[in-house]
Amino acid sequence: MNQRAAVIDVERIRREVEGMDFTGVMEAAFLRYSRGEAIVPPVGELLFADPPGEVHIKYGYVMGDRHYVVKIASGFPGNAVRELPASDGLMLLFDRETGALVALLHDRGLLTDVRTAAAGAVAAKHLAPKEVERIGIIGTGVQARLQALALKTVTSCRDLMVWGRRPEAVAEYCDDMQTVGFQPAVASDAAELAASCQLIVTATAAHEPVLAGVHLKPGTHVTAMGSDTLDKRELDTESMRRADVVVADSRSQALVRGEIAHALREGAVAEKDVVELGQVISGELPGRTSQLQITVADLTGVAVQDCAIANAVYEKISAAQV
Amino acid sequence: MNQRAAVIDVERIRREVEGMDFTGVMEAAFLRYSRGEAIVPPVGELLFADPPGEVHIKYGYVMGDRHYVVKIASGFPGNAVRELPASDGLMLLFDRETGALVALLHDRGLLTDVRTAAAGAVAAKHLAPKEVERIGIIGTGVQARLQALALKTVTSCRDLMVWGRRPEAVAEYCDDMQTVGFQPAVASDAAELAASCQLIVTATAAHEPVLAGVHLKPGTHVTAMGSDTLDKRELDTESMRRADVVVADSRSQALVRGEIAHALREGAVAEKDVVELGQVISGELPGRTSQLQITVADLTGVAVQDCAIANAVYEKISAAQV
Repeated sequence: MNQRAAVIDVERIRREVEGMDFTGVMEAAFLRYSRGEAIVPPVGELLFADPPGEVHIKYGYVMGDRHYVVKIASGFPGNAVRELPASDGLMLLFDRETGALVALLHDRGLLTDVRTAAAGAVAAKHLAPKEVERIGIIGTGVQARLQALALKTVTSCRDLMVWGRRPEAVAEYCDDMQTVGFQPAVASDAAELAASCQLIVTATAAHEPVLAGVHLKPGTHVTAMGSDTLDKRELDTESMRRADVVVADSRSQALVRGEIAHALREGAVAEKDVVELGQVISGELPGRTSQLQITVADLTGVAVQDCAIANAVYEKISAAQV
Repeated sequence: MNQRAAVIDVERIRREVEGMDFTGVMEAAFLRYSRGEAIVPPVGELLFADPPGEVHIKYGYVMGDRHYVVKIASGFPGNAVRELPASDGLMLLFDRETGALVALLHDRGLLTDVRTAAAGAVAAKHLAPKEVERIGIIGTGVQARLQALALKTVTSCRDLMVWGRRPEAVAEYCDDMQTVGFQPAVASDAAELAASCQLIVTATAAHEPVLAGVHLKPGTHVTAMGSDTLDKRELDTESMRRADVVVADSRSQALVRGEIAHALREGAVAEKDVVELGQVISGELPGRTSQLQITVADLTGVAVQDCAIANAVYEKISAAQV
């Protein structure tokens, strides 16, 4: 009756998550989100000054799921001087029928990283051209790694080209990618990368575009996952204008943040032409209809992804304990 | 660096809380809230159908405090058939400088109960007449008990009169109150109670008034703590009209919920006459200025109270562990 909730630390979560393929979990999450079967209230926010910091509270549930989920994620830039990661986070699972706390996944932000990468795989699965000769990654951080790893589940291509600003970071990235089975090459700029890659992921925190539409070749898919606010941006106006298909993880979020919000404001994309990823997955709306099209997926991150990964990971852990 | 957060269960919290006087803690919380030193964003809400339920997420911090607090509280009426309490809850404390989770107080709603009662003591301390010959309690539930207990810290009066709808509940209440040092008497109705009590607490979930202003005597203080929504109500229009001093725990909340919201809509109270509890505590605005006045305090519950009690309880527990 008064059962104690499970507290699961990041080391345990990391062990469970490693090698697990979340493409199907995210696919189902986006599908149900676009069907209106997910309850995702507005994000709660708490801001701090001196030292500066921000906390986001995302919560919701998918109808029929056993748990509702509350995610509390923070960013405190000053942590670097304490040798602590700037971002932290946890997810709480509650019983949907009683409100009882079932588990605290103290994942320190790991599950957010993983679900974000899995969304990239879903976008590529449904939008990339059939033939991908080379994957292009712009960025050399955590997501630049996880996005490439997640793509292994949806494409057999292992040729990879990377572009980043700092040569040391690029070299380190190539070493790491080689270790996990890719043949990495280094691009001298984004134009060179766009010239030979059919599946491009921008994974930066850029505030100015890192990819120019003029360089995009027909038959390219671009997933832009770095911008989740109005002041961040990875794709220029021309990239969005040239896109034959523009896909958002969440249409309502895309209107106010990310690449699509910029493109709408600039008139490069019309609101009616924005397709939701779940609508492509369900077949309700077409995604890519020709191998020569340019497709763009803009991922801003939706709370339904948090619900989905928390449920999936907890299910795996609790099944192992039976 | 990666210190594990403390998980503190309700049994431990109950032991710490028992006999602890939170009047000063709540006094400070209201004071700082009214001074604008507390950051309390709007409450997050998650609703469920079939079985019905609701979840509230309250969060915030007081400037200068070491922790910010997120409270997640739920109400699932269907729990009764499972022999589970309908309400549940927990509070999370995070380090205000790093965002790290410090503690999970799995209090199952206990701390909300305690802080609500402590607010009643603060209201009585600052608004009740000097001479209280008898305390009047309307209601026989958890808050009817805790409010009386909390009043012991601010008045020496131990004479208590109770009114409730169910005779068995009233009898049980009297037994319990005797055990904790009160001399209880039973009122046949609210009029009888109002005739002999100078300090009245309404602690019900009533949707229709349980106390009529026509029965109030000069020199009475009333704390109405039961209504926290627009559909709940404990005091009639006349009670509010007759009040010489009307005090809210939060002016902004009082405009939209609780007794004051009803009274404003009915023109029984003018918005400019609503005083905030913290303003009375600080002396910025007068509370009771004569022993013959009727004062009313309307408590709707403010997230700053959750922050204050979570910090106070955690501080005590962590000090004990050093």
